[in-house]
Amino acid sequence: MNPEYLVGIDIGGTTVKMAIFEKEGTIIEKWEIPTNKDNQGISIPNDIWTSIKNKLQSNSVSVSSVLGMGVGAPGFIDSDIGNIYEAVNIGWKKNFDLGNQLHLASELPVFVDNDANLAALGENWKGAGNLAENLIAITIGTGVGGGIITNGQVVNGSNGTAGEIGHIMVEQHGAPCNCGRNGCLETVTSATGMVRQAKEGLTSQPTSVLKEMLEKNGDLTTKDLFDAAKDGDALSISIIERVSDVLGLAIANVATIVNPSKIVIGGGVSKAGDDLLIPLRKAFDAYCLPRISEACEFRIAQLGNDAGVYGAAYLVKQKLG
Amino acid sequence: MNPEYLVGIDIGGTTVKMAIFEKEGTIIEKWEIPTNKDNQGISIPNDIWTSIKNKLQSNSVSVSSVLGMGVGAPGFIDSDIGNIYEAVNIGWKKNFDLGNQLHLASELPVFVDNDANLAALGENWKGAGNLAENLIAITIGTGVGGGIITNGQVVNGSNGTAGEIGHIMVEQHGAPCNCGRNGCLETVTSATGMVRQAKEGLTSQPTSVLKEMLEKNGDLTTKDLFDAAKDGDALSISIIERVSDVLGLAIANVATIVNPSKIVIGGGVSKAGDDLLIPLRKAFDAYCLPRISEACEFRIAQLGNDAGVYGAAYLVKQKLG
Repeated sequence: MNPEYLVGIDIGGTTVKMAIFEKEGTIIEKWEIPTNKDNQGISIPNDIWTSIKNKLQSNSVSVSSVLGMGVGAPGFIDSDIGNIYEAVNIGWKKNFDLGNQLHLASELPVFVDNDANLAALGENWKGAGNLAENLIAITIGTGVGGGIITNGQVVNGSNGTAGEIGHIMVEQHGAPCNCGRNGCLETVTSATGMVRQAKEGLTSQPTSVLKEMLEKNGDLTTKDLFDAAKDGDALSISIIERVSDVLGLAIANVATIVNPSKIVIGGGVSKAGDDLLIPLRKAFDAYCLPRISEACEFRIAQLGNDAGVYGAAYLVKQKLG
Repeated sequence: MNPEYLVGIDIGGTTVKMAIFEKEGTIIEKWEIPTNKDNQGISIPNDIWTSIKNKLQSNSVSVSSVLGMGVGAPGFIDSDIGNIYEAVNIGWKKNFDLGNQLHLASELPVFVDNDANLAALGENWKGAGNLAENLIAITIGTGVGGGIITNGQVVNGSNGTAGEIGHIMVEQHGAPCNCGRNGCLETVTSATGMVRQAKEGLTSQPTSVLKEMLEKNGDLTTKDLFDAAKDGDALSISIIERVSDVLGLAIANVATIVNPSKIVIGGGVSKAGDDLLIPLRKAFDAYCLPRISEACEFRIAQLGNDAGVYGAAYLVKQKLG
């Protein structure tokens, strides 16, 4: 029998998400296990394969009918050989040979790539991308992540650092970023950045309704900002305008390089839907070559947290047909 | 006999450059003909094939031993089918079927792409790129052009507009650009932009040595600016600093997307060599994620005006092996 199944794996700091797919993209089963970060994450490959082996068995899928396994992991990946250069929040030491370990255990072909890149690939396969040849995916949550597809393939770059849209520099002397620099895109347009700007704004605009919300709930969310903006709160409106403007310019400049047919926005902040997309598109159009703007469509991501396993499975399909 | 030769064609507004290559990249003969723009450029495909046929014959190369022809053309290209969406400075009407016409005349496989993209591919094959999987090429002359290679392939984009580095927006209310907008990168960092800034600067800095140069020669060149900067001219130094800073930031942001191993700078302004590369690299490093900066090398382009025919020939090799 020809191999007919794909396995997608998405390793996060808390859980490892996994799914068995039919080759054309239907999920047979999807599940997750905790990420065991003890001993610098040494048991993770074995945990993953043990779990998959059991699930294959319980679904009556033989290992030999699996075409291969795709794996998304956080950090910088050498996708040619499946090594993780560095993944701080998992604990793996430098050049952890994740791909090789999973291959030795399973005797299956294994392909590894960055989790944000694979989320982009997953959205492109079964989500908002619709198999675009050229796509920009942006995830706006605690940080701002990105994945780029050109000529139908994920762009990984020369040392696994491509598509780091969140670290495009937008303000030379801006707020400090987790990367150690200042003024990266994510300092302005992440959920964290938006809430920080709201709190800062309250010192000069203490009558904003956000003050009440902050006092009542102990913190603010981007949903608070979008809700307050709808009710006419000037501070919230000004932050959303600024975020749309800065994000629109940054995406326009990325689009000037990639000329995508789709720009897919995901992550928690994307739940704002049109309240984000409409001002964002307006700013984007103002900054972008008309020919590039005309060719591309903004979409909200559709697969949520499953994008990673979809993309991991699709990577196998793409590599092995 | 197996096909052993490649033909590269680079169509410009004044001349069409052509070359016959051995498959591994040695040029057998290189020549050019005038670009006949009469009647909206209708005779160009026939002019090209007639000229190539003669040259193949005089070099005792049979048409059947040619693997295929690659063609670079200015403007926006549908590289899938070899049509030119638009090429204002040649005169071709919308959707000019250049690839098809050359194929019908020659009965050879024909591949068409944007000239700047193919120049990048040519530099990557036999010039400064050294077959990088991920490369950014920037040509700084009258305008600022660009070509991007990811995963070893030219990025053409969804409607042939990828890699338009010169139209990254750097100043929202900057100088007018040929594209009809204001503040594109090329308004600041092209030769034209640099000379414009020098002339503007002379009104407030009339003691600059540039004034003398302008009066003596009737105009200024970027070479004048680099020469004067070496002699300590404050105006020239300030313009070169600004150009390096703006260009360094723009390239850093492109590199944040592409994570290249090589950044190749070509065009007339690149003749300044280290006088440009040293301040440019300094600005780039200040704006770029260290991991991305560490992975990439700046190089001056090596093939000059031949980059286009090299890239066109390599496109054939890449498509047909």
